[in-house]
Parts: sequence; structure tokens; C-alpha cells
Amino acid sequence: MQLKIALLGGDGIGPEVLAQSVKCLKAIEETFNHKFEYVEAPVGAIAMSGSGKPLPNETLKLCRESDAILFGAIGALEYDNNPEAKVRPEQGLLSLRKELGLFANVRPVKMFPTLLKNSPLKESIVLGTDLVIFRELTGGIYFGEKNISADGTKASDVCEYSEKEISRIAHMAFKAAKRRRKKLTLVDKANVLESSRLWRKTVTEIAKSYPDVTWEAMFIDNAAVQMMLKPTQFDVILTDNMFGDILSDQGSVIIGSVGLLPSASIGTENAMFEPFHGSYPQAKGKNIANPVASIFSTVMMLQHFGLEEEANSIVKAVHESLSRKVVTPDILGSSKYGTDYVGDFISEHI
Amino acid sequence: MQLKIALLGGDGIGPEVLAQSVKCLKAIEETFNHKFEYVEAPVGAIAMSGSGKPLPNETLKLCRESDAILFGAIGALEYDNNPEAKVRPEQGLLSLRKELGLFANVRPVKMFPTLLKNSPLKESIVLGTDLVIFRELTGGIYFGEKNISADGTKASDVCEYSEKEISRIAHMAFKAAKRRRKKLTLVDKANVLESSRLWRKTVTEIAKSYPDVTWEAMFIDNAAVQMMLKPTQFDVILTDNMFGDILSDQGSVIIGSVGLLPSASIGTENAMFEPFHGSYPQAKGKNIANPVASIFSTVMMLQHFGLEEEANSIVKAVHESLSRKVVTPDILGSSKYGTDYVGDFISEHI
Ligand SMILES: CC(C)[C@H](C(=O)O)[C@@H](O)C(=O)O
Ligand SMILES: CC(C)[C@H](C(=O)O)[C@@H](O)C(=O)O
Repeated sequence: MQLKIALLGGDGIGPEVLAQSVKCLKAIEETFNHKFEYVEAPVGAIAMSGSGKPLPNETLKLCRESDAILFGAIGALEYDNNPEAKVRPEQGLLSLRKELGLFANVRPVKMFPTLLKNSPLKESIVLGTDLVIFRELTGGIYFGEKNISADGTKASDVCEYSEKEISRIAHMAFKAAKRRRKKLTLVDKANVLESSRLWRKTVTEIAKSYPDVTWEAMFIDNAAVQMMLKPTQFDVILTDNMFGDILSDQGSVIIGSVGLLPSASIGTENAMFEPFHGSYPQAKGKNIANPVASIFSTVMMLQHFGLEEEANSIVKAVHESLSRKVVTPDILGSSKYGTDYVGDFISEHI
Repeated sequence: MQLKIALLGGDGIGPEVLAQSVKCLKAIEETFNHKFEYVEAPVGAIAMSGSGKPLPNETLKLCRESDAILFGAIGALEYDNNPEAKVRPEQGLLSLRKELGLFANVRPVKMFPTLLKNSPLKESIVLGTDLVIFRELTGGIYFGEKNISADGTKASDVCEYSEKEISRIAHMAFKAAKRRRKKLTLVDKANVLESSRLWRKTVTEIAKSYPDVTWEAMFIDNAAVQMMLKPTQFDVILTDNMFGDILSDQGSVIIGSVGLLPSASIGTENAMFEPFHGSYPQAKGKNIANPVASIFSTVMMLQHFGLEEEANSIVKAVHESLSRKVVTPDILGSSKYGTDYVGDFISEHI
């Protein structure tokens, strides 16, 4: 297979972890006789220091032309602490999602038995966790109209959803549930929000086409709690942009592996793959960032193109690294292995 | 002291737990020579089945005239699963907050050493947790304009904040931090929301008047994670209505005592005291609900009126019940004690 892959390293540890993914993809090319073309492009704070724009036009163009996008991370401290900044690195990521119509963010949260000890939850609670979050990614309060009054004393954001936006991701989530344990949980705040009530109404209708999937609705406050009390109760979680942001971060932490989880952002014409984790600017350039979340993102990419055998060979190599304890210090405090070394080890074991 | 107290039991287990609080207050009256007047009034689903309104005019009037309101809980299953319902029990609670201007919801989250085992978190993580959440309660997406398009295919909610709304609760939170461990964490999503950026800007200004308080800002996705990874890092958390809803529920669960935590909702003219927990309709009338959260709400009420000694005598009685294991089954699975019995025990030990 020939694939053109856009590499958007972004900020902080993004480029370092992405470099390890490329090593793995090169090993896949060799072993399985594929031809991948890689094109790098700037996004985020790093792009702003060049063109002034968090998502330069050429980067967007490249992404449109590519078969897939591998994304590193975005965000820099100098902007986080400056509420007056008119342009922000995160806009690069948000515009990418919106421009490419990447409406479904798929985040699998599956326990790694070797990492049980790293969970903040009691092991008996987290044991067996295996869920996937379908987070709507191009609507809701992230993209609704934003306003600030002329005198700067009032600000607002609109959370808006249409039936169409809800139903396309709902169908994806129900289909996934059908292939899995046949349970779906819609997370919303329908006792307060009009938009949540539209989610509930729409999902109630769609559910009728999936009679073998059992579904329930849960308020976000309760869901955040249930994620800690009994994460094994979840199979597929379907939710909006903001609630999905919170729940998926919670998910990555309960299985003790914030540095291991990948995600896929899927649209009708493009697909982007990125780690759960952020840009972690404090670790930039220190060769301590865990490359596995990024490497697993390439696994999701390969699966997206139906390359199951190739995907599995990476998964196996990662498990080899985990069981031989060739891991970065976030996984094992005493570990002396760096980002680079772990990337080399995994790519050499493919 | 003379006090007129409105009793709003509401739905589900609300009235049962509130009845135990009244027992305690009667004991306080006797022991400390106070005169409390109690007036009951309907709110929530129960009020709807009478007058059709979740907050009848007479109830609101009574609340305005009272020195304090003790609230039970609100919400009933038949409405949760009906997205088409035009009137909902929760509107009773939301209108009360809005009409009375109860803008600050104060939720202390403090570990009870005897309950360590009940936490879903590892004990080493939760040990020593002692934080208080200041949740803005009359603004944000809860009360912004709501819309549904004529054909029912689009719905929206506006999240709006003014500098004034932010600054009044921010001052309360900074003052509390000053009396405590002098640390404040603002939780927002300033990398995405305009309203969050107004929070950050306003709080940055206000912080200058509290030079002895160290403060930081944290994104909600990270805060939900830090609440599980290291809750002891928090002293005072300041946040908006929606994020506060999620974080405070998380808080109650990590210390293993969802049935124990009280809250105070404070306005310029009125104050309401209620448990963290919801109406738990499944337990209604079974005499199994934990009355302690409601009883601790009366403690917050007494403290609000400066009655420290009185408040302490209730706290002591509750600790006595905990250490003698006179608790409901949510605290100790094998316990045979009911709501009523626990209420009697505590009030008799005042
Ligand atoms: C960086 C930020 C804008 C982003 C989000 O909130 O969507 C991140 O937290 C994520 O989850 O991908
Ligand atoms: C019942 C509901 C409307 C309410 C809220 O979301 O504020 C509750 O969850 C709470 O936290 O008091």
C-alpha cells in the first residue's frame, strides 16, 4: 500500500514522540513492503513563531492531500497564562478538526495488566477496564459563537448541536458497540441543558435501529463519578465535545497510563491520529517523554486502512518493551530508558 | 437565638434525611436554649404533582422570609428518561438558586480517617485530603439563554459570565484560602472558552489584593485528573457552575463518603444548606439513606450564624456514631442500622 502521511509534530514533546512513530512506520514499510511518504508541517505555537498562524495554510493544504495525519501535541505555557492572547496555539488543533470535519474522536481505554500498579484507583476496581469513548469533536461549546462585550466585562460561549451532528457520531458509536460488548452509555446533562436533551432525543430514536445494543443515559456529574467507582461497567461511551474532553482524560488516568493511549479523529474525508496526552512543555527536549501513545496512534492509523497484521506487529513489539521493562520513567520510576531508546527498541522488534 | 428555618424535603430520600436533621436541631434548641421555627414547603417532583410547578410561589415566599433553608434533594426517574418533558423537577432547585441569588456553592471535601477503605482511590493518594470547592451557582451555562429550533433539530445553551459574577465569588474563595492553607486553584477551560478567559483575567486582578495566597489556573480536563492523582494538592478550588458540578461530585467520591458531605449555597440575603447527594429514588422509603450529609448541612447552617459550639456538638455526635459504627449500609455493608436509627443516635448524643 502507498500512503502519504502528514507529520504534524506541534509543540512540547510532540516532535520527539512523533519521531519514534516514524521509526516504527519505516520498519513496517520494510517488513511488509509498503511505501509511505512522510511530509512534515508546522502547527501550534511553533507555527506561530514562524508565520504567526497556529495553522498555516500550507499545513492545512498538506493535511487535505494526505491519506492520514499523525499529530504530536499542542500548547505552550506562555499562552496558557496569558488570557489576553488573541491567537493561541490550541486554535491550530481546533481549526484542523473543524476544517477537516474530524467529527468523531475515538479514544479506547483498555487496561494493561502490567500497569495495574500505576492506577490511582484500587486494583480491584480498575481490573478489566475496557471501554471506548466516542467524543463529538467539531461541535458544541468548542465551536459555538464566542463573544466578549466591548468593555470586556462580559463573555459568552454558545453550546450548539444539530440532530445531524449528533446522529452521525451516534451511528458510529452504536456500530462499535455492536462489535463489542453491546452496551452504550450516552453522557449528557439533560436535566439542565437544552442541547443535552436533543442528544437524548436523537439517540433514543437511533437506538431503535440497534435492537441488540443495550443503552442508557447518564448525567456527566455521575459519569465522572462512575468512572472512578466502576469503570468496568462501561463499554462504549458516547458524548459531546466538552464532556468527552473530561471523561477521556479521566479514562487515561484510571488505567495508569496517561503516556500510552492513542486516539483517532475521523471525518468523512480525512483522519488524524494523536496521543491522548498534551504537549507537556516541562519535558521538552529531555528525552523522557513516553513515545508509546504516539506509536499506538500509528496502530490506529494502520487499522483504519485495514492493515491489521501490520498493526498487530507494532502492538506485539510494544508489549515486548513493556514486559522487558524497556519503558520511560513515567511507567517505571527507576527506568533509565529515554524516548529515543524506547522508540529504537520497539521499531527493532517489529 | 431565634431562627425561622424553611424545610424543603423535595424528592426521593430528601424528606427522610431532612427529618433526621430536624431531630438534631431540636436537640440543639434544648441544649443551648435556642428557639427555631420550622416551616415545611414542597419543591421538585412532589410539588409538581400538587400545583404543577416545581417551585410553587408560596414555597419561594417562605424561603425569602426564612433565615435559612434546609434542602433535601430533587429529581425523579420519570423525568430523567423523558427528554420531551417541558417542566422538570430540577427547575425547582435551579429557580430557587436563581431567585434567591445563591451565587456561591461551598462544598468542603475532607477525608474521614475511618472511611479511608471506602475510597475508590488508593489510600496513600487520598490520605490527608482537605479541600473546599467554591462553585459559582447562578450563572454560566445553567442559566444562559436556551433555544430549540422550531423544527426541533437544533438546540443551544449559552454559557455567559460577567466580571461582577466572577469577582463576588472569587473574593469569597480568596478569603477562605487566606483562613486556610493559602492556596487557590482556578479551574477553567481558558484554552477554548471566552468565558473562561474572563474568569482568568478577573481572577488575575483580584489575586493582587490577596498577596499571601498563592494561586494557579488549571484546565478542567487536567483538574478532573489531578483530583484522582493527587487530591491533597488542592486547598481552595474556584470554578464555574458546570465544572463545579463535576468536580464536587468527584470530590465526594474520592473520600469514600458520598453520603456524608454537606454544602452551603450563599447569597447576599439568603442561605440554603443541602447534602451533596441526589434524590436516590431507588432508596426512597426504604430507611437506608444516610442522613449524615443532611445533618452536616445543619452544621454548616449553624456555623453560618456563628453558632460554633452548637455546630461542634453535632460534629462530635456524628463522629461518635461513625466510630461506634452506628452507620447506614452505604458506609459499612454489613450495617443493620436504618436512617431513622442513625438520626436518633446522633441527636441523642448532642
Ligand atoms: C488542547 C485542547 C484544546 C484539547 C481539547 O480540549 O480538545 C485537548 O485537551 C484534547 O483533549 O485534545
Ligand atoms: C440536580 C442538578 C440540577 C444539580 C446541578 O447540576 O447543579 C445537582 O447535580 C447539584 O450538583 O446540585
